[in-house]
Amino acid sequence: MKYEFNLEREYDMIAIGRACIDLNAVEYNRPMEETMTFHKYVGGSPANIAIGSSKLGLKAGFIGKLADDQHGRFIKQYMKSVGIDTSNMVVDTEGHKTGLAFTEIKSPEECSILMYRDDVADLYLSPSEVNEDYIKKAKILLVSGTALAKSPSREAVLKAVRLAKQNDVKIVFELDYRPYTWESTEETAVYYSLVAEQSNVVIGTRDEFNVMENVQVGNNEDRIRYLFNYSPDLIVIKHGVEGSYAYAKSGETFRGHAYLTKVLKTFGAGDSFASAFLYALVTGKEIDSALKYASASAAIVVSKHSSSEAMPTVEEIEQLIAEHEAKQYC
Amino acid sequence: MKYEFNLEREYDMIAIGRACIDLNAVEYNRPMEETMTFHKYVGGSPANIAIGSSKLGLKAGFIGKLADDQHGRFIKQYMKSVGIDTSNMVVDTEGHKTGLAFTEIKSPEECSILMYRDDVADLYLSPSEVNEDYIKKAKILLVSGTALAKSPSREAVLKAVRLAKQNDVKIVFELDYRPYTWESTEETAVYYSLVAEQSNVVIGTRDEFNVMENVQVGNNEDRIRYLFNYSPDLIVIKHGVEGSYAYAKSGETFRGHAYLTKVLKTFGAGDSFASAFLYALVTGKEIDSALKYASASAAIVVSKHSSSEAMPTVEEIEQLIAEHEAKQYC
Amino acid sequence: MKYEFNLEREYDMIAIGRACIDLNAVEYNRPMEETMTFHKYVGGSPANIAIGSSKLGLKAGFIGKLADDQHGRFIKQYMKSVGIDTSNMVVDTEGHKTGLAFTEIKSPEECSILMYRDDVADLYLSPSEVNEDYIKKAKILLVSGTALAKSPSREAVLKAVRLAKQNDVKIVFELDYRPYTWESTEETAVYYSLVAEQSNVVIGTRDEFNVMENVQVGNNEDRIRYLFNYSPDLIVIKHGVEGSYAYAKSGETFRGHAYLTKVLKTFGAGDSFASAFLYALVTGKEIDSALKYASASAAIVVSKHSSSEAMPTVEEIEQLIAEHEAKQYC
Amino acid sequence: MKYEFNLEREYDMIAIGRACIDLNAVEYNRPMEETMTFHKYVGGSPANIAIGSSKLGLKAGFIGKLADDQHGRFIKQYMKSVGIDTSNMVVDTEGHKTGLAFTEIKSPEECSILMYRDDVADLYLSPSEVNEDYIKKAKILLVSGTALAKSPSREAVLKAVRLAKQNDVKIVFELDYRPYTWESTEETAVYYSLVAEQSNVVIGTRDEFNVMENVQVGNNEDRIRYLFNYSPDLIVIKHGVEGSYAYAKSGETFRGHAYLTKVLKTFGAGDSFASAFLYALVTGKEIDSALKYASASAAIVVSKHSSSEAMPTVEEIEQLIAEHEAKQYC
Repeated sequence: MKYEFNLEREYDMIAIGRACIDLNAVEYNRPMEETMTFHKYVGGSPANIAIGSSKLGLKAGFIGKLADDQHGRFIKQYMKSVGIDTSNMVVDTEGHKTGLAFTEIKSPEECSILMYRDDVADLYLSPSEVNEDYIKKAKILLVSGTALAKSPSREAVLKAVRLAKQNDVKIVFELDYRPYTWESTEETAVYYSLVAEQSNVVIGTRDEFNVMENVQVGNNEDRIRYLFNYSPDLIVIKHGVEGSYAYAKSGETFRGHAYLTKVLKTFGAGDSFASAFLYALVTGKEIDSALKYASASAAIVVSKHSSSEAMPTVEEIEQLIAEHEAKQYC
Repeated sequence: MKYEFNLEREYDMIAIGRACIDLNAVEYNRPMEETMTFHKYVGGSPANIAIGSSKLGLKAGFIGKLADDQHGRFIKQYMKSVGIDTSNMVVDTEGHKTGLAFTEIKSPEECSILMYRDDVADLYLSPSEVNEDYIKKAKILLVSGTALAKSPSREAVLKAVRLAKQNDVKIVFELDYRPYTWESTEETAVYYSLVAEQSNVVIGTRDEFNVMENVQVGNNEDRIRYLFNYSPDLIVIKHGVEGSYAYAKSGETFRGHAYLTKVLKTFGAGDSFASAFLYALVTGKEIDSALKYASASAAIVVSKHSSSEAMPTVEEIEQLIAEHEAKQYC
Repeated sequence: MKYEFNLEREYDMIAIGRACIDLNAVEYNRPMEETMTFHKYVGGSPANIAIGSSKLGLKAGFIGKLADDQHGRFIKQYMKSVGIDTSNMVVDTEGHKTGLAFTEIKSPEECSILMYRDDVADLYLSPSEVNEDYIKKAKILLVSGTALAKSPSREAVLKAVRLAKQNDVKIVFELDYRPYTWESTEETAVYYSLVAEQSNVVIGTRDEFNVMENVQVGNNEDRIRYLFNYSPDLIVIKHGVEGSYAYAKSGETFRGHAYLTKVLKTFGAGDSFASAFLYALVTGKEIDSALKYASASAAIVVSKHSSSEAMPTVEEIEQLIAEHEAKQYC
Repeated sequence: MKYEFNLEREYDMIAIGRACIDLNAVEYNRPMEETMTFHKYVGGSPANIAIGSSKLGLKAGFIGKLADDQHGRFIKQYMKSVGIDTSNMVVDTEGHKTGLAFTEIKSPEECSILMYRDDVADLYLSPSEVNEDYIKKAKILLVSGTALAKSPSREAVLKAVRLAKQNDVKIVFELDYRPYTWESTEETAVYYSLVAEQSNVVIGTRDEFNVMENVQVGNNEDRIRYLFNYSPDLIVIKHGVEGSYAYAKSGETFRGHAYLTKVLKTFGAGDSFASAFLYALVTGKEIDSALKYASASAAIVVSKHSSSEAMPTVEEIEQLIAEHEAKQYC
């Protein structure tokens, strides 16, 4: 089964949400207290997905707000350098800062992030900075859940979603749940449901779907049955090392498997999964094939130091898939 | 043409939003600086509509949050005394105050309101305080636009709207636009559109529809064409003294006329209009008849001192309609 | 013992702080829930003291910030009408509201106030709105403790205090402690100590001195010994119905007695006390006589409906003192 | 002329204020956009001064609040490791973050700092966390001006100042003016004056004294004449490369000269100046000698990469002074 897009659009994907700075421990496998040097990368889920897609050859654009400082300028330069259209990345004029994520890598299993997300520039994107003329040039509007966490970014996204629907742009909702930016899980549930019901494709982990449903432990079947009453026709639920499921409204279910790899850290797995999955959909691959691209991409990124710069090429992904399938048939 | 409701429901209407205090000038026809005494009434659009409907014989309930003080207790007592179910009016525990509206009546044409709406209790209603079991007992969920102005009341309303839709409760959206509670008209437009698209009946002035559309001057036909793509099947647009229009999805348009009356002040016109209009719909009257009830109710309230206590009985309304029609045919 | 002032100054007193609205129950001796009408008066401790002093014949001025609305304009008009110079009452331009106090009089012993003090205009007086040229025209700068509760009013007062000291203006600090405007009693203690140490005269209840000392129960002797190390040379500590003490740095102690009276409510007692006490000091009366004026003034105000309009004339005060002394010698 | 201290105190100095993280560009002499790696150091003026003094052999303590995260723990560990008593460094429990300073070194003349100072933990130190028993163990309480920028840190410092005065602890006020943390220069002027008047020693640049006076260009003589009316008996005003002046209440003036050095960046000059100046005072050196220690210390720090780790030893300072004097007499 393949997924159809409006082929006449200039951009394969326009992402909306945060573009931030990751400060990754240069000396790792230790507590951050003992890390004395940090390497700077562009980060933030929708930025990573746009970067990953762009490296895979998709034409990507970005709607977001940047701090008027050295970090903001670095982000814009970097995203431009990998081929992303940055014409709709606006600069904040009210002194808000760039979001930061210091990553701590104690071991491949023990990773944590020290976040600076209070009053950051990306959450100040306003509805007036979302342009219909831009959105209607896209096949896909990629919405990151975290961009719904605060006003006015929340309203900017709700406006973008409405404009996408009115202009036949497929809405892909990556749940990207980050508890620290939300007032309560109840609030998250309200907006996650609202946007999921209006989206065409919803992608998230099982835990993120639990947040949307405001339950401790939900199950996939109940949720997809509910969402298929609304706009979604493809729902991807990820279960970590147990792999992932893609459910189509038509009734088909596809199973994806995690690729074994040498893990350096777990950051960036979801973003690399999404970028390769969307690349595969847009280039007309079957959904079960898209899940392979997604898993291979994630496996590559978790073995490397960054989330953005580590995004693989098509060749790397296809090589890993080939190696993997060769092994299976030995 | 009549409007259909689920007849098995316990409550004709449950309103959600603010219940506040009006402090109306006892000495009027002068600037407020010269008013030395104020009379206390319950106020706030959805409270007034619930009170008005209840006085007309509907069974009404209310979802809202009250300050833990003398004003909050007065509101609950008063609403109970006119027959409203107050079981879902919760008491704030964080020290928020009751909203206040000091009314200035310089002349019938020059009325203004001095508002105390910062951090008021009603805007702190949270999603967890909205109960599905309660909402599903209603024929109508009446949503007041002002309740969308701030979080967490905004999310409480969005949750109530979703629960109403899932439980076949008709959603009536009274736009009730009050600029001072909103960050920007852009923000208002986002939420007004979102809720209007999910409502069954939308009621507002032409100016309020302009805010929803985020335009200076919109026109009725464009807007109804747009909204009829979504859930609404009945849209009422009020044009002040020029009367009002009710548009049905089926294609019919109904015209309502304002009733001439001795005006004391303009406050309360919209709320009395809505309560009588909904009374008429629920009791199975034709839509053009409902517009007459609405206009008559408004005419009565603007001739009196308060917005809530002045709400008329069915007899008063029907008498005014009869007198009016008698005059027309002389 | 008399208190000396710089006699060449144009104003007997300039007060700094809040001028607000009292909404006093017209129907009283009942819970406020059953009060349906409220009478409007000017209120707020330093405003009341300025009004009281002005009615007694002192030349008073006021430094404060008023809301740009009907309540703000009423306050200015009223204060002007009783002879106060309002040239340094500035108008807020950022939409802040006038503080409100709804008074509940259940019985003479059970009075409470429902306050609206969040983000009120008076607390937005800024240091730039405090003028040295004005302050140096005064014999007394009357500082109200509540004006220290929030920035920027806090800094405006600290600046006024410095300017008064530099220009040989006597600083009278009325503690006027209102818990609801402060973050913590610790914070209050810091600023009350800071300003008390720089003041010439400090007036407060025993409870208010406890807050300054950040103790549960302090004693007068310890506190006056401490404060006499700094600027104060006259300290008045009020013990309610047990009367009051005035301590002079020179070592003398004066005892004041409460006057028995028919009490309507307790509001306004402190403000009427202070205004008559200062009147007596400025007009060269002995301190023990000043305490009598103060007690008589308080007794008159608590027997009446308002705090400001009820402020007595010199004749009324002196008549009460005379009657009282006549009784004592019978 | 020497400066006298209470010799029986356990700590030579207790500093109060912020302890933060500096992230210094590893690749420098370029815009920060092109710096990809940052080295982590402890930073913040009072922390740097305590570290500098401790390295010079003084017994130092610190009163401050740290974030409950990896950065907070690193700061505490580092300060302990250089010999500072950290028993009064409390841990924030409300999720506030550690302040950050990313340094950009375009050239020795063009340095700038990208600050993360919104809602940082150090500004949440509260008065209840300032202990009299600790303060009275010190010869010197070092107050950093930035700690006055926000409540409750502001009140914590005001309380510490009062306790120091009551316990015969010399108060040294390092103005350390950072515009971005203040609401207005007017507000700064109020608190800088208040604390300067209560301090024994005041140290700052000419620009910082202008802020205290709330003037564009003030002059040293006017200001010292004013401050000598109050508590100060030693005032140090720094004029950058033109050197510095130390004014004693006794009437003497001392001139200090800047030491020529190879400058890497300008950060840390003031902190290293203060730590060596205080070291010299405490160890009984003459004031003109103290100015030499201060200038030499500053010259060493600006030639190195960090502000804290680069703090020199006594030997390094004395060697530089000796070299410098040798050159002068050639």
